[in-house]
Amino acid sequence: MDRNDNKLVKDLAEKILSGDILSLSKSITLIESVKDEHQKTARKLLNSLVPHSGNSIRIGITGSPGVGKSTFIDSFAGYLAGLGRKIAILAIDPSSTKSKGSILGDKTRMQKIANNPNVYIRPSPSRGSSGGIADRTRETIILCEAYGFDTIIIETVGVGQSEVLVRTIVDFFLLLLQPGGGDELQGLKKGSVEIADLLVINKADGDNINLAELTKNAYSLAVHYLQPATPGWETKVVTSSALNMSGIPEIWEIIQDFEQKTKQTGAFESRRQEQNLDWFYSLIEKNLKDLFFGSSQIRKKLHNIEKKIKIGKIIPSDASEIILNYFINSLNK
Amino acid sequence: MDRNDNKLVKDLAEKILSGDILSLSKSITLIESVKDEHQKTARKLLNSLVPHSGNSIRIGITGSPGVGKSTFIDSFAGYLAGLGRKIAILAIDPSSTKSKGSILGDKTRMQKIANNPNVYIRPSPSRGSSGGIADRTRETIILCEAYGFDTIIIETVGVGQSEVLVRTIVDFFLLLLQPGGGDELQGLKKGSVEIADLLVINKADGDNINLAELTKNAYSLAVHYLQPATPGWETKVVTSSALNMSGIPEIWEIIQDFEQKTKQTGAFESRRQEQNLDWFYSLIEKNLKDLFFGSSQIRKKLHNIEKKIKIGKIIPSDASEIILNYFINSLNK
Repeated sequence: MDRNDNKLVKDLAEKILSGDILSLSKSITLIESVKDEHQKTARKLLNSLVPHSGNSIRIGITGSPGVGKSTFIDSFAGYLAGLGRKIAILAIDPSSTKSKGSILGDKTRMQKIANNPNVYIRPSPSRGSSGGIADRTRETIILCEAYGFDTIIIETVGVGQSEVLVRTIVDFFLLLLQPGGGDELQGLKKGSVEIADLLVINKADGDNINLAELTKNAYSLAVHYLQPATPGWETKVVTSSALNMSGIPEIWEIIQDFEQKTKQTGAFESRRQEQNLDWFYSLIEKNLKDLFFGSSQIRKKLHNIEKKIKIGKIIPSDASEIILNYFINSLNK
Repeated sequence: MDRNDNKLVKDLAEKILSGDILSLSKSITLIESVKDEHQKTARKLLNSLVPHSGNSIRIGITGSPGVGKSTFIDSFAGYLAGLGRKIAILAIDPSSTKSKGSILGDKTRMQKIANNPNVYIRPSPSRGSSGGIADRTRETIILCEAYGFDTIIIETVGVGQSEVLVRTIVDFFLLLLQPGGGDELQGLKKGSVEIADLLVINKADGDNINLAELTKNAYSLAVHYLQPATPGWETKVVTSSALNMSGIPEIWEIIQDFEQKTKQTGAFESRRQEQNLDWFYSLIEKNLKDLFFGSSQIRKKLHNIEKKIKIGKIIPSDASEIILNYFINSLNK
């Protein structure tokens, strides 16, 4: 069994490195599987491919529903593909409903890239917690980079905690806005602007051009007062129209400028190292909790102790000591 | 030793319950001690007193430096003492510097309550993480309630995460503001207004009266659009002048109204139960992490594995599995 497993891993790794797209998709499915044996295989595969990963720019793109995210990503990725870039588009969508504007449920709107061989689109896995989804996405990035994609786009809907999660995964974070209104009218969560390296006022076309300029100026003023999301990089604000492609080349120039500058200062590399360490430590915490709360003995104890806490019979600091000692003893057998 | 310890605990508990203030102070010092034996004694003491706790209204008061917090708390607590209430004022100050406007470093400004026997003032412990400080404060509340204080005021400077922490400890949250400007000019962190049950526009005196009214109206409009911090309670906005005591009786009426209403609906009790359970589970997490990271073997392993993660030699998901297995085996000896 184990030998077969090793053969499978070796086979998949070789095929991914040689550019076999079906093996990539198959491997991502392994990563997303909830089966223990698949997880084991996936980890082996990832470990063999991680030395081949890292060679891309990872771009997060977020925006409220209605801001034109599908059209923007279609135009943006289409433009990059035209330049010879190889783009993987992944989604983080922690919402369970499919109707909240996730682009990847709606490929029909992405005519420029839907059948482009240089663009790979992978919808987000539907199950799992958002934390789990972030881990799967990080692993998927590694596979995509090993395959040879040099541009990774992580798309997310600007609801819930997804933006903050994406920020911990990407090098560059792009926030899409629409002409008119401040944060609230834009449907923005608080803090969305603070984590962005670039704000793009989309739909700057037709009757919207003037309003888009006004919105751009207002946000330029706002970001001026904020701490930049990336050390040494001043957050930019531009307008664009995904419809008539205006602003798209400039956005790509800004991203390249960002990559060059942050690589020179070391901010690029140190953010990635930081992200990897954060990932590692968040996994340790998660695994520790799984170990603890996964025990049926512990859960039974918790049930009883919760009752006592609620009626004020025991103080939480004492209760937590008691249950931790019980946990240690249970492992000691 | 253990018998002496039990005698000490019994002695302190009895004295606190009979209203000996020196024993209260001594016990709080035990809670704040970093020594293991003191912690052990403190836990025993807390467990014996927790059935006598809970009979108070716990009020959080926060506000940016310069908003007049010292004067307000002086006037407010002075007024309550005049009504026969017994007030304990505790501080959560996660900042290390003492100059950020924490009232308790500046008793000279609190002339109304400084020598009032019905008012007990306890500065925040200086060391420890903010999480740790919150735990100590929760425990101190239990002692103060067992002693007989019926009004607990938790004061915090509106910087860092302290407000959010305080919200998890108190029944009622009061945000002090000054006349003029919105959140940013007020030096408010985002989210401060959302967690408040009452906004008080302070310094509504002299030339400021009109501006204070305008500010009140603006915030009334704003809170109207927000989810209330407490289910079934509409967030209120009032003006007050701690200087000439205007508004202070009204504020106390609002708080009593809040207590009565939320006790009727059950929101009061269920928040406290929720807070206790949250405290319990956050302690479990903390203790688990302490157990893990407290091991020198683990720390050594981590040091080596971190290096490998940084240079991309091992993937975090695999690394975390390896170290967790190592941890389980180390406990198994």
